[in-house]
Amino acid sequence: MSAPSRPEPNYFGAGPALLPTNVLEEAAADLLNYQSLGVGVGEMSHRSSQATDIINETKENFNKILNIPDTHEVFFAQGGGTGGFAAVVYNMLASFAQKTGKKGKVDYFITGAWSQKASEEAERLGADVNIVADARKFNNGKYGVIPAKSEWKFSDPSETAYVYYCDNETVAGVEFAEVPEVPEGVELVADMSSNILSKELDVSKFGLIFGGAQKNIGIAGVSFYVIKKSLLDRLPQKEANALGIQVCPIFLDFPSIVKNNSAYNTVSILCIHIINLVLKNLLAKGGLSAQESLSKRKAQKVYSILDQNPALFNLPVDKSARSNMNIVFTINGEGNEEKFLKGSSARGLSGLKGHRSVGGIRVSNYNAVTEESIDKLIEFVKDFIKEASV
Amino acid sequence: MSAPSRPEPNYFGAGPALLPTNVLEEAAADLLNYQSLGVGVGEMSHRSSQATDIINETKENFNKILNIPDTHEVFFAQGGGTGGFAAVVYNMLASFAQKTGKKGKVDYFITGAWSQKASEEAERLGADVNIVADARKFNNGKYGVIPAKSEWKFSDPSETAYVYYCDNETVAGVEFAEVPEVPEGVELVADMSSNILSKELDVSKFGLIFGGAQKNIGIAGVSFYVIKKSLLDRLPQKEANALGIQVCPIFLDFPSIVKNNSAYNTVSILCIHIINLVLKNLLAKGGLSAQESLSKRKAQKVYSILDQNPALFNLPVDKSARSNMNIVFTINGEGNEEKFLKGSSARGLSGLKGHRSVGGIRVSNYNAVTEESIDKLIEFVKDFIKEASV
Ligand SMILES: Cc1ncc(COP(=O)(O)O)c(C=O)c1O
Ligand SMILES: Cc1ncc(COP(=O)(O)O)c(C=O)c1O
Repeated sequence: MSAPSRPEPNYFGAGPALLPTNVLEEAAADLLNYQSLGVGVGEMSHRSSQATDIINETKENFNKILNIPDTHEVFFAQGGGTGGFAAVVYNMLASFAQKTGKKGKVDYFITGAWSQKASEEAERLGADVNIVADARKFNNGKYGVIPAKSEWKFSDPSETAYVYYCDNETVAGVEFAEVPEVPEGVELVADMSSNILSKELDVSKFGLIFGGAQKNIGIAGVSFYVIKKSLLDRLPQKEANALGIQVCPIFLDFPSIVKNNSAYNTVSILCIHIINLVLKNLLAKGGLSAQESLSKRKAQKVYSILDQNPALFNLPVDKSARSNMNIVFTINGEGNEEKFLKGSSARGLSGLKGHRSVGGIRVSNYNAVTEESIDKLIEFVKDFIKEASV
Repeated sequence: MSAPSRPEPNYFGAGPALLPTNVLEEAAADLLNYQSLGVGVGEMSHRSSQATDIINETKENFNKILNIPDTHEVFFAQGGGTGGFAAVVYNMLASFAQKTGKKGKVDYFITGAWSQKASEEAERLGADVNIVADARKFNNGKYGVIPAKSEWKFSDPSETAYVYYCDNETVAGVEFAEVPEVPEGVELVADMSSNILSKELDVSKFGLIFGGAQKNIGIAGVSFYVIKKSLLDRLPQKEANALGIQVCPIFLDFPSIVKNNSAYNTVSILCIHIINLVLKNLLAKGGLSAQESLSKRKAQKVYSILDQNPALFNLPVDKSARSNMNIVFTINGEGNEEKFLKGSSARGLSGLKGHRSVGGIRVSNYNAVTEESIDKLIEFVKDFIKEASV
């Protein structure tokens, strides 16, 4: 038998999503035998020196690629993006309570299904949720825009534990073109599950950035967090609870995780190792400025061919809010979407079906999707247009 | 390059722990290309038909190997064993509240570090914790016994949401020889992180069995749960919260997870697939009755050689409470433990260092540790004894 490999896939799935073949080849070998230790990367103690080296190196490469200032700290946890929705509430409220002695309000932008779910989780966990702006109000009840700044209604800054937004809405295909400006002194929290490492970022603007790893930077089983260190100073759980803040399960308690260098309990070293391989790959290719140009160019190619054929393709997202990661559209004409999916599949292009909640087509354009894959897709779209207009 | 493989390791680490080489070989290939789809098992949507098949097949094999009755349901979640400590509290209290309208008390056996941590988590989350028996009280302040039945102090059964115990204490090396009998009508919850699938089990005795996968059945990143279905009938969160029960983060909410066939949010399909490969391996080798004989025989070999040399080896655990999975001991004589670790390592035997909290030596004897490995270890121990007694 030869080493596991594969022909380069042309796969546009939204998540879990494509990873670079060379990353997976290395991970596959390491699954059996890591650094000639005789055992695999999934079988080593999470507190072994090898595991600690993996965690530390991954943090360093994260710091390097995102230019993370000393004021901030990277860590890893379990629970995925949805676990993050809850972890944000417990931890950020307790930090604010430490500073002010108050429970605080929480402000949510709603621009798609994921920020909506995050705000619902905050409600469930008893937070006083204020909606800064709900995109549906400004777009006939549907997602597809970032509301204008003039429409944003923040809570009183002295009462606000944090402002939350989702930088890229994976289902709706809506991305913030720039980091939203929030009132002076208020902490900003961002879900970047589906666009972290796709563009340059000024981390100093954030109190917290988090996301599940399984779209742009790894596989399911671990989430990444970048936190402003001062937020680790927190009211003790009991006192926070007396203010009406729910108690955080210990495995999602940020200070406990950071104190234990992401290994408070058994974190997946395999998952972190894969993130590290992805980071090394990106750094070798010129880091985030190179990746940002590439991501934009790839996305532009797709938007451009779709825009040129407005009779056939509907792009529901306003141009100013288009995502470079998830390009969503529907196709006019009875049976045309099915034809599109079938025809693309016959050419080896897969993962194009839209999210079950919105239908249509979704082209996910994550970092691992090569320009060659996008070009093949464009070729197919051109042929599809020809056939459809016959 | 040839397919990733390795010489059979002789590895006795306590967790994350050894997995069968053939399981990892298959997982490594599937990481690149699952079922000739052209993409890997970590890159597929957790709601794709392939992923659903993996989840369903793994559940079926779990049912088969443990003979799980129709009254019970298997599911998978995130958070590891420590996530389970919290999930138990939220969910079991809300089930009890549904039945009785009351918050209920929770009863914990404390027999080692893991049940201790679980009880502390219950306290943190505001549960009314009663300690049924603390093993340290009956063993000079140290773990190493299962307290006698006559010493067990249960709460009033009509007030008890559940009785909790850890079937195998990974650090102390203490295992329950049989499932503890609890008052009629009270639900029993067991942490089986480190001994699930090592022996036959009467699942009908349990309200809930759970654990992290990364010791006997898989890699870190997923936990397994076997729940009595009737416990999924629960008081709604708000009402439960009004009774003083903390709100469960949605990704750990058992009814939501079960309703979505373990894919409420992105569960690791790779981790579940590895569990399935382990289950298929075990089933092919005769299931749990065969595994139980093998585990006991392997453990007996190690205990036996240690018992024969009481001047050299101290076994802190009472014979009636000895674990078949984690065999812990210390060695008399200045520098002898270091010599043991060095000498064994020179023979390619690794992972033998005791947990940092207790020191000494720990031989983990999980399912993937072959009898050949144990025999090699015994050979080494014999030589060590000869040298040490010169
Ligand atoms: C932007 C965003 N946030 C959160 C999530 C939820 O992540 P998870 O499934 O890991 O809980 C997703 C999942 O697709 C997502 O795309
Ligand atoms: C018996 C037992 N329970 C719980 C845990 C905690 O599991 P995790 O590290 O996945 O949180 C462990 C970990 O070693 C364990 O051995």
